[in-house]
Amino acid sequence: MVILIAIAVIVALGLAAFNYFGVKKRDAGTPFMKEIAAAIAEGAQAFIILEYKIIAVIAVVIAIVLAILTTPTAAIAFVIGATLSASAGWIGMKIATISNVRVSNEANKSRNISSTLKVAFQGGSVMGLCVAGFALFGLLLVYVVFGLILGQLRMENMNFHANFLGIADIPFTMTVTAYALGCSIIAMFNRVGGGIYTKAADMGADLVGKTEAGIPEDDPRNPATIADNVGDNVGDVAGLGSDLLESYVGSLISAIVLACYMYYHSTKIGTPISASLLQKLITFPLLVAAVGLLASVASVIFLLMSKGSKHPHKDLNKALLIASGATFVASAVLALTMFGGETFPALIGFKLGALSPWVAAVTGIVSGIAIGQLAEYYTSSDYKPTQHIAEASGEGTALTITQGLATGMWSVFYPVIVLALATIIAFSVAGLYGVAMAAMGMLSFVAATVSVDTYGPIADNAGGISEMAHLDKEVREITDKLDSVGNTTAAIGKGFAIGSAAFAALSLFASYLYAQAGSGISSGFELVLNMINTYTLAGALVGAALPYLFSGILIEAVAKAARSMVQEVRRQFKEIPGILTGEARPDYTECITISSKGALREMIAPAFVAVLVPIISGLLFGPAFVGGLLIGTTLSSIMLALFTANAGGAWDNGKKYIEEGHFGGKGSEAHKAGVVGDTVGDPLKDTVGPSLDILIKIMAVISLIMVSVFSKFNLVSLLGL
Amino acid sequence: MVILIAIAVIVALGLAAFNYFGVKKRDAGTPFMKEIAAAIAEGAQAFIILEYKIIAVIAVVIAIVLAILTTPTAAIAFVIGATLSASAGWIGMKIATISNVRVSNEANKSRNISSTLKVAFQGGSVMGLCVAGFALFGLLLVYVVFGLILGQLRMENMNFHANFLGIADIPFTMTVTAYALGCSIIAMFNRVGGGIYTKAADMGADLVGKTEAGIPEDDPRNPATIADNVGDNVGDVAGLGSDLLESYVGSLISAIVLACYMYYHSTKIGTPISASLLQKLITFPLLVAAVGLLASVASVIFLLMSKGSKHPHKDLNKALLIASGATFVASAVLALTMFGGETFPALIGFKLGALSPWVAAVTGIVSGIAIGQLAEYYTSSDYKPTQHIAEASGEGTALTITQGLATGMWSVFYPVIVLALATIIAFSVAGLYGVAMAAMGMLSFVAATVSVDTYGPIADNAGGISEMAHLDKEVREITDKLDSVGNTTAAIGKGFAIGSAAFAALSLFASYLYAQAGSGISSGFELVLNMINTYTLAGALVGAALPYLFSGILIEAVAKAARSMVQEVRRQFKEIPGILTGEARPDYTECITISSKGALREMIAPAFVAVLVPIISGLLFGPAFVGGLLIGTTLSSIMLALFTANAGGAWDNGKKYIEEGHFGGKGSEAHKAGVVGDTVGDPLKDTVGPSLDILIKIMAVISLIMVSVFSKFNLVSLLGL
Repeated sequence: MVILIAIAVIVALGLAAFNYFGVKKRDAGTPFMKEIAAAIAEGAQAFIILEYKIIAVIAVVIAIVLAILTTPTAAIAFVIGATLSASAGWIGMKIATISNVRVSNEANKSRNISSTLKVAFQGGSVMGLCVAGFALFGLLLVYVVFGLILGQLRMENMNFHANFLGIADIPFTMTVTAYALGCSIIAMFNRVGGGIYTKAADMGADLVGKTEAGIPEDDPRNPATIADNVGDNVGDVAGLGSDLLESYVGSLISAIVLACYMYYHSTKIGTPISASLLQKLITFPLLVAAVGLLASVASVIFLLMSKGSKHPHKDLNKALLIASGATFVASAVLALTMFGGETFPALIGFKLGALSPWVAAVTGIVSGIAIGQLAEYYTSSDYKPTQHIAEASGEGTALTITQGLATGMWSVFYPVIVLALATIIAFSVAGLYGVAMAAMGMLSFVAATVSVDTYGPIADNAGGISEMAHLDKEVREITDKLDSVGNTTAAIGKGFAIGSAAFAALSLFASYLYAQAGSGISSGFELVLNMINTYTLAGALVGAALPYLFSGILIEAVAKAARSMVQEVRRQFKEIPGILTGEARPDYTECITISSKGALREMIAPAFVAVLVPIISGLLFGPAFVGGLLIGTTLSSIMLALFTANAGGAWDNGKKYIEEGHFGGKGSEAHKAGVVGDTVGDPLKDTVGPSLDILIKIMAVISLIMVSVFSKFNLVSLLGL
Repeated sequence: MVILIAIAVIVALGLAAFNYFGVKKRDAGTPFMKEIAAAIAEGAQAFIILEYKIIAVIAVVIAIVLAILTTPTAAIAFVIGATLSASAGWIGMKIATISNVRVSNEANKSRNISSTLKVAFQGGSVMGLCVAGFALFGLLLVYVVFGLILGQLRMENMNFHANFLGIADIPFTMTVTAYALGCSIIAMFNRVGGGIYTKAADMGADLVGKTEAGIPEDDPRNPATIADNVGDNVGDVAGLGSDLLESYVGSLISAIVLACYMYYHSTKIGTPISASLLQKLITFPLLVAAVGLLASVASVIFLLMSKGSKHPHKDLNKALLIASGATFVASAVLALTMFGGETFPALIGFKLGALSPWVAAVTGIVSGIAIGQLAEYYTSSDYKPTQHIAEASGEGTALTITQGLATGMWSVFYPVIVLALATIIAFSVAGLYGVAMAAMGMLSFVAATVSVDTYGPIADNAGGISEMAHLDKEVREITDKLDSVGNTTAAIGKGFAIGSAAFAALSLFASYLYAQAGSGISSGFELVLNMINTYTLAGALVGAALPYLFSGILIEAVAKAARSMVQEVRRQFKEIPGILTGEARPDYTECITISSKGALREMIAPAFVAVLVPIISGLLFGPAFVGGLLIGTTLSSIMLALFTANAGGAWDNGKKYIEEGHFGGKGSEAHKAGVVGDTVGDPLKDTVGPSLDILIKIMAVISLIMVSVFSKFNLVSLLGL
């Protein structure tokens, strides 16, 4: 078992290293191209170093608190998670800043979309393989060291153990949850910091460049253009990488933790799950992850070795199909081999026998694809919703915004119906464990989806470099085409991100209720969160409001940083003569500094909200309140995440639809309105939406860790209310 | 008891009639003013008649369904509620279209703000008194006829009774709930229809008039200007009137219904509430309403008889202070008299003895005021949030929108904290009944708040008439001042509307759980809605998405109607020469027809969503799903309602702040951006926000009526899932 996982990790990280150096040794083009690429790489590197320094301080504080309040092992697991997540983000950013210029050069030299795609995908695959490889490596480490060697997985340790403060947990669940928290903290900062950075630069560049000065995107005359390209790397690449690593880990541990609590529950009510079945419930998600990773490796190799067609969309779909198909078959075999012949106690709710957890995982995959397709419908210019926004732009900016808001709101309903149905199906097939497996199913071949997701921003950056280096128009057309294909596949990635976040949060939430019940579990026990309990209800109200506060802070942070950028760009246009005629070189560094400082300053507050609100409200109002808080935040975040992502995507593509020549085309009044819509949508879709996915998991994980603390100590029970 | 309520109703409606004819006999000014006023009045009347015809058909269908599924008495109570609510809206609109021109004339003749205020307030008071008077009259009728004469209030009838289909309810709760449904249905259509009408006209007029042609608001050259003024009357007046009547009735009946269910519960668990205490719990909210109404009558008389100052704001505050202060004292006396010496079983949770329900009501009042003050903070140009929006407008339209979205999102958090704390306090003082009384407390002096709320749009309309009739600038200044004072007081009214909706929905929701438990209540019974039940969880997901769908439909409806209006206004400017020079008269009627048709066509879909979703999902997935649906919709709607109302208000006042001369003032680029923000905010704050308040109550009421049906018949239990 351990060996299969170890093989998957080694093969994946080996291929990642191979691809890393494979890309690196390619030619980076002309000296000027290299100069631009170096500027982007340095900007990105400088930002990440500053960011990681800040995070390191915060992480050390959290580790110390964890060591005191829970156990030292939890603190160590937390540090492992944080280190691996940070490394995945770092490597992804590194390879992206190496690949971009090489993609540009390949397009320039070969003028062949297929070979250019391969370079971009080879770069992207490093990130994808590292995300899954590092995450699984860390979990394997935790499993072997703490679970097997230190014995946390021994049956006698599958019980609540009190530390010196009298705070009690099941040791192994605490360890893996702390590991997940480490990943979540990094993801939160990378997403929020990177999201603010990239959108401040993007909005700043667009607001003055496109709207006021009328120069195209990525024009070297725009002082914010390098900052904008740096933003793609720290936001879309490093942010996305740690985000999906966090989702992946969250899904994996939610199934493991739930299995432990269900076992504890089963022993208390006198119908214990057998030791062997428990071990299988714990290892099954890890093994699904391992076969998914191997399937992804196969798909990456296939794409890089295949002859390649002129239709990059088809090639990528083929790769995804290989990864998902192989995972689909292999995990069915796994389920049958592992669970065949077992008897299942009623508690775990395996209604379909050995295939139950597999069916739940497949439900997750199918619903993730359906949500992605719905997102595609609402945000692609091939369909009516986005075309209507473009059409409304002809009547003025106000109607562009209004129509986009309406589309965003509409777009929430059907994906949520899919989620609700999938929850019902996964639960009725395999109980609460099934809900966790649905999340795991979605993300089982995450290495392949992240590879595809990452190659998009690389191609985007390559386009920027081609523009700045004055390469042929044809080069830009190739990178643009690759970028636009990336946008389509990214829609499915987003469906997986939000869907898995919802499922993982729900199963973590079930674990939270088990942990809260703790020693109170008895033969008549039923898992309950009673909404008509006043504290729970009040918690749900506050929880539902929290994502709004969080989003408000984020949007304002972007707007603030973007406004500084606007003023700087305006200042340069005014004070440095000759920029607009191309005679003088703008001061790129100043813009990079503004984005960087703004992002670092503004990323603290929202992260603190996510971390501190569940802790403080737990210490004040107790675990019933926090239970409500979690459910309120989860419900509200799912809606806001879908709304912001789809509204933003629809505005973006509505503008592109106009640029394709509809409703007046480029330069028309409709286009100006479309640009405003796009700019409004930018922080919504690239900062707020993805951060909300993390918010619900980070809150669930922290509450799960802290529930034993505030079950014992809270103001309300202290006052006897 | 009955006599006190009857006196309150007679006095209130008597004063309403007196004020109605008092305003009507005033001089309406010049023939041209009369002509404009007649056009507005005719337009409003024509729309309401068409609207009511459509609603009548729908209401008849609902009444028939109710008669078959539940009881004929419920159907009759439904019709009474619908008729009274429709009448209140009608009379309010009628008096508003009578008052507007007379306010304008009074301002013109007297040039005195105090005497002008009195005319406007006299008109507004007719609406305020009718809302509370009609609502209380209807409830008195239901109470006397069905409760006393037909015996539904007899103790032996406080029990589940099955109809011929085997569907069981407590008869009196069914009757009053059906009465509330009648009020809700009208409120829904009036709010939605009126909201679409007014914003289509407003946006259409602004988009072409202000933005393209550069002519001021209410300019007679704008073909949409009469439609815009008609919209104020059908949306802000008739819509507001039926809305608050619905809120008032919802709060009243939520306490009554809950009292009945708690009594039933107490008998089942063997510690029955005494018959006398039950009667007191049922009549207490009615008596609080009666003293609140009498206090409001006193405040209206005081304002109209007082000498009046130059500060309308102070005069109105004094009136509100009289109404609330008198209610505050009188209801304390009531509580002590009624509940003094009673013993309270643990079930109803009166922790502070006789004063318990009064303290809960006061909690409601205080939190309503706090929410109103917070709304004031976020939306008034006296404070930073709105000033920041104005400042951001200097950097372009995109940042105006972004900053407004951020402000709207920020603005959700603190009001929800207030709601959560108030829920905890009201509950710990007086149990679930306390939560219902908190809603009742907020609305006890609704006659006074609606009088103040209604005078605002009357003053606004008077300003429009002054503009069109080319009266002195000074006249417009007087009406503008009155209008702006109205905006401030309206903020508190909005706080009461959303706060009472939340509390009423929560206590209706508790009744829903009681009704669902029905005959299952036994000695160990605890009221539970278990969020970890999959159907409940899935219901909560769908419920949380529903307000987004509903809002999306509404915004799109407004945008659609507004676009038709834009095209019509553009057509007229182009095809009828001389409009812009003032030589030719635009075709006002065509614009009125467009708004009217658009509103009637578009109001059906959102209303159907509100009514049908709980019924259909109940029949498919059963009562646990609907329980989740209700909690999801309530949570999500509260957030969206606060977000949309405050974002819209902040954009509106941000624009006004620029117009006052900040950041470039009128005509600057900042101003243009501000106008776009205002236009985007219009449907959010005046169509979506208020409709969401109704949505949560209409869904709760329908579910409460239908729960016995789908507890008995639903697909999931039919299939044995």
